[in-house]
Amino acid sequence: MNFTPHNPEFASVVRASFERQGLMKMLGATLDRVEPGAVDISMPYSESLTQQHGFLHAAAITAIADSASGYAALSLMPVGSEVLTIEFKVNLLRPAAGTRFVAEGRVIKPGKTITVSRTDVFAHADDGVPTLIATLIATMIAQAGQKN
Amino acid sequence: MNFTPHNPEFASVVRASFERQGLMKMLGATLDRVEPGAVDISMPYSESLTQQHGFLHAAAITAIADSASGYAALSLMPVGSEVLTIEFKVNLLRPAAGTRFVAEGRVIKPGKTITVSRTDVFAHADDGVPTLIATLIATMIAQAGQKN
Amino acid sequence: MNFTPHNPEFASVVRASFERQGLMKMLGATLDRVEPGAVDISMPYSESLTQQHGFLHAAAITAIADSASGYAALSLMPVGSEVLTIEFKVNLLRPAAGTRFVAEGRVIKPGKTITVSRTDVFAHADDGVPTLIATLIATMIAQAGQKN
Amino acid sequence: MNFTPHNPEFASVVRASFERQGLMKMLGATLDRVEPGAVDISMPYSESLTQQHGFLHAAAITAIADSASGYAALSLMPVGSEVLTIEFKVNLLRPAAGTRFVAEGRVIKPGKTITVSRTDVFAHADDGVPTLIATLIATMIAQAGQKN
Repeated sequence: MNFTPHNPEFASVVRASFERQGLMKMLGATLDRVEPGAVDISMPYSESLTQQHGFLHAAAITAIADSASGYAALSLMPVGSEVLTIEFKVNLLRPAAGTRFVAEGRVIKPGKTITVSRTDVFAHADDGVPTLIATLIATMIAQAGQKN
Repeated sequence: MNFTPHNPEFASVVRASFERQGLMKMLGATLDRVEPGAVDISMPYSESLTQQHGFLHAAAITAIADSASGYAALSLMPVGSEVLTIEFKVNLLRPAAGTRFVAEGRVIKPGKTITVSRTDVFAHADDGVPTLIATLIATMIAQAGQKN
Repeated sequence: MNFTPHNPEFASVVRASFERQGLMKMLGATLDRVEPGAVDISMPYSESLTQQHGFLHAAAITAIADSASGYAALSLMPVGSEVLTIEFKVNLLRPAAGTRFVAEGRVIKPGKTITVSRTDVFAHADDGVPTLIATLIATMIAQAGQKN
Repeated sequence: MNFTPHNPEFASVVRASFERQGLMKMLGATLDRVEPGAVDISMPYSESLTQQHGFLHAAAITAIADSASGYAALSLMPVGSEVLTIEFKVNLLRPAAGTRFVAEGRVIKPGKTITVSRTDVFAHADDGVPTLIATLIATMIAQAGQKN
């Protein structure tokens, strides 16, 4: 889908908000793509974020997936909006085995108040094709009157 | 609901698995209650886990809620089982404002293969009554043949 | 939880909207309880609504559960509001075996724009205690400026 | 994604099960596409299935979406399997305005026990392009030892 952003400065709004998230820093996450309605966030494998079997913890995967959905939504919101997650559902499809994890957030329904986004998370390994390891769908609400 | 555990050692199984979760340590989370089908996990407020408005990050709340649901499920599983989250949905109802956060995981449908649990998360402040800030519902699967 | 309704006529608003739902009639559903933030809808077993094993179809259970959540939300909304379901998740816990099915909708977070409700559905049989067969959680939005 | 079915007779298994669903008949639903991991179900607009504003009722949309997800899953299951929905989440994105509604069910993760499917529902009108009105994600379980 092609979306026209309300805010021509949408990319810097998204980047500035991402920078303020201490948690993203702690995860080593980076903002790889910021387009209207489409935001990718990636994160390297890290031993300090594993669960008991040595795979990346689902909470880390969920955190970047929720953020990618939220920032995809924010990219289409009017100037001065802030985005809040009302709810999300995540399906954890396969173990998070890989060297890098990419959360691809895409808006599927923009709206003045409510935006719905979907994020697929892929595990990348040194060889071979990316594997879909999780999918998240989120409902976001725009809050007006905020300084971004 | 009153449940009879299959494994008389259920509490030590849950405690041992919790100890192996580096992420729970990083969040400062503790296991406050381990009964058949009911597990509470709590976590103090921490500045390093906030989002841009100074409230605790939703990812931290979600992480303890998912764990409380998972361990509530594990407490009812047969000897040698391991628990995996297939999917969950979380509703973020209010900002995570408080000094301490308690995730109360409760099994609502135990099963040989599939267990469904619900976790309510309450914010506690120095004064006043706890506030419901999030609710999570999760589908868990038992994996047999594991050493706990 | 005890809620104070904004609209003193909330019960007649809910009853009038329920009457306009042809689908509820088709299911033989009735509105059994209408209190602030709490609405129960029940439905008898009917052979014409079964799936292949003779149990009531999940779609019928889901329909009354969604309606109970929606009307519980509507009962707390301002005069002139209409309620729309944005999204819901349902867990189908046990087969819908019984003579009567009761969906108990309860608001867990009221709000000016967004309301979150939870509905548990119980199967009643001629003997014995009701069985929890499904649980649904829904996000509802209030639409202002409507004639109820 | 390209899937290889376990059961070479998958299409007739799906069609036979669909025929036994009285509810699908009541909705006027038809099975338009049955391929490995991909099942489309469509339904015409019908006045008897509307809600209070004249749009098709969300329960009808949800019913065909859940069925499309379930049959997409069943198409990849071993001989003798039956499919049960454990849980699903649906986002109702736009009013169901149109002359025909098509639910496109696609498996996103097949499995021996658990299958995850996603269904997008499109409204078709006499003119113009189809509109995405709802999206559903479902977790399905295979039950062995059944006669299909």
